[in-house]
Amino acid sequence: MENKELRVNGKRLRESLERMAEIGAIPGRGVHRLALSDEDREARDLFVGWLKEIDLDVTVDEMGNIFGRRTSKNNGLPPVMAGSHVDSQPNGGRFDGILGVMGTLEVLRTLHENRLITERPIVIVDWTNEEGSRFAPAMVASGVWAGALDRDWAYDRTDINGNRFEDELVRIGYKGQTPCRAWPVHCYYEYHIEQGPVLEKRGKVIGAPKGIVCLHWYDVFLEGVANQVGPTPMAGRHDALCAAAEMILKVNELPDRVGGDLVATVGEIENHPNSRNIIPGKVHFTVDIRSWDDDHAVKAWDLVRKDFEDIASRRGCPMSIEETWKVQHSPFDETLVRRILDAADQLGYPNMRMVSGAGHDASYMNQICPTAMIFVPSIGGRSHVEAENTSWEDCAAGADILLHAILHSAQEG
Amino acid sequence: MENKELRVNGKRLRESLERMAEIGAIPGRGVHRLALSDEDREARDLFVGWLKEIDLDVTVDEMGNIFGRRTSKNNGLPPVMAGSHVDSQPNGGRFDGILGVMGTLEVLRTLHENRLITERPIVIVDWTNEEGSRFAPAMVASGVWAGALDRDWAYDRTDINGNRFEDELVRIGYKGQTPCRAWPVHCYYEYHIEQGPVLEKRGKVIGAPKGIVCLHWYDVFLEGVANQVGPTPMAGRHDALCAAAEMILKVNELPDRVGGDLVATVGEIENHPNSRNIIPGKVHFTVDIRSWDDDHAVKAWDLVRKDFEDIASRRGCPMSIEETWKVQHSPFDETLVRRILDAADQLGYPNMRMVSGAGHDASYMNQICPTAMIFVPSIGGRSHVEAENTSWEDCAAGADILLHAILHSAQEG
Repeated sequence: MENKELRVNGKRLRESLERMAEIGAIPGRGVHRLALSDEDREARDLFVGWLKEIDLDVTVDEMGNIFGRRTSKNNGLPPVMAGSHVDSQPNGGRFDGILGVMGTLEVLRTLHENRLITERPIVIVDWTNEEGSRFAPAMVASGVWAGALDRDWAYDRTDINGNRFEDELVRIGYKGQTPCRAWPVHCYYEYHIEQGPVLEKRGKVIGAPKGIVCLHWYDVFLEGVANQVGPTPMAGRHDALCAAAEMILKVNELPDRVGGDLVATVGEIENHPNSRNIIPGKVHFTVDIRSWDDDHAVKAWDLVRKDFEDIASRRGCPMSIEETWKVQHSPFDETLVRRILDAADQLGYPNMRMVSGAGHDASYMNQICPTAMIFVPSIGGRSHVEAENTSWEDCAAGADILLHAILHSAQEG
Repeated sequence: MENKELRVNGKRLRESLERMAEIGAIPGRGVHRLALSDEDREARDLFVGWLKEIDLDVTVDEMGNIFGRRTSKNNGLPPVMAGSHVDSQPNGGRFDGILGVMGTLEVLRTLHENRLITERPIVIVDWTNEEGSRFAPAMVASGVWAGALDRDWAYDRTDINGNRFEDELVRIGYKGQTPCRAWPVHCYYEYHIEQGPVLEKRGKVIGAPKGIVCLHWYDVFLEGVANQVGPTPMAGRHDALCAAAEMILKVNELPDRVGGDLVATVGEIENHPNSRNIIPGKVHFTVDIRSWDDDHAVKAWDLVRKDFEDIASRRGCPMSIEETWKVQHSPFDETLVRRILDAADQLGYPNMRMVSGAGHDASYMNQICPTAMIFVPSIGGRSHVEAENTSWEDCAAGADILLHAILHSAQEG
């Protein structure tokens, strides 16, 4: 194939990323660029300007998703799509999301300067509000686009100040006319940082997740008896925080106990009245269980739930549990995954098949068309923090893989 | 002794308590009467009116402490003092504090209607801001009076809205002229609900604490590594909440492990970022250890601190510890304690010697003069909650004991 030697411009990719990192920049090399904020607008404006420089046909849909379409030999064929998101976590990093958008832009710039016209059109996309930090839930705009979520319901989401999603979309000038509705897509690629330590630890540059793990969320509520600590003897106490502490450790031990690739975490806890001289009377905490194997996750939960019941009963702390969210595991298209691994082999980058532990817009796109992702190492496995980092070399390597994956798919008749 | 048959009017005491419970009343029979609030002013106004009805000489000092002095045969002798506080916990009960004030008032009303003039003056007191819920620390006004705390420092305490203690004192009209400074007192009695389950469980009506236990407060800070839960394998995590959970259980097991009368509690915990899909990166929690034996408390802390160090090191979560407050145990005057138990025997009330697990204004008074307390049962051991309750019979019984203890001391030449 004549394009085998084609490579992206790593220096230009770095410059794009550095320019974007100025928007919402915070100390410690991080960015704070919440969805539909002024910073989001500024990043979108810059992005749209860059799309126009390379003659893409830009449309904004009614959820604020930005599409840049590159013409092709056969514009009637369903396009290859690739992208990610420009919004960030609060006090987040400079790679999460934006790397996939700037990486795809760099691919298109490379095709543009090489005057390379593909069989199929190529569409770059910035999905609105992937993070869900300002407006829950996450991935809401790709969800609406894929038909999994309702547009008007999404419009009514509010941030902590009561601002509506739709109103903020209008305010920043990105409520477009185009209906937010899936159209035929040949395939979708999303390039992203790994957000975990696996690639770095295994000495790999490229990861191709075979899909996204299942995700089960639970909320546990415990009732103890609040009482003054001094005059209340230990015997007969019903300390909801002690019950929660036992449960937290059971959750932490669960992956070792059941084996496999399961991860289980208590990330959030609220304690009442949360006063140093009052025995905790109410505790709420969350449980997050993920695995490639849905049944394994269910069995693990059943096990730990029994532990919870024993602990609650022994400590005399009545418990209630809510099943908050349950998403099945989502396998990506094996042909595309294989293509990414092959491209990495051909370009000489150590690579591995893995799983994605986090959700991405690719989860919804996977319901619409063949989908795959490209991961590059997160230094120290850190993400969603200012310290989030990926080497410039790895950023360029991932973009090269994306270039060849896109080219391959876009040349398919 | 001619007064042996004297009894308080239990019905009148109940009416006083019920009238006071209307001020700041909340659903569930509780009261919300924070220090220096409008409710506190209303309760003070009512109280002062009642003092004047029985010809007491009322003074308000510069910390807002209210004293009502009853004349005697020998007004030059140091008085017997008794009282407690009218402020409540947020959403607290209708007995904590106010029982001691209304109980003492009922004693003075009983002496008044019997035209009984004692050798020594008797002074009833309402100490400002015993609870410390609105303005930390607790017992601040008896602390200033006893010379243990500085008046101007107390004035500068602020509530969560930034209101200064002194400004609020002025606002409610209770910043008096009299210097807040101890004068000679013959002895001090404080009548209070037990706030624990011991009297009820042992079938006793009257408790005479031999003193107040020691109190050691610590703040523990743990540093983990915050990361996305999905992509971060269990191995290599540094989960600060898991480390805290292990420590919380070690604190809970400590009393069983070291024996004695020790109680140990974690009442407060803060978790960061406290997001269900991020591994906890920072946790702060408190430790409260109390015992009659100061050395025992210190040894127990040394033990559990070693556990903490092992846990922090094993989980790779660096720890720092602050020693926040340390109060030695405070034994009451043995003669007065004995007098309370004897009075209970004579009046036919089952009684017991015990300890006070909580601090009271009596702690500071114990630094100034011979001091003792009278406890009556808290139903279910509950206090600082709406469900706080004591039977009207027990309220009257405690007031009768207070009557005879005060009478005995006030007749001493």
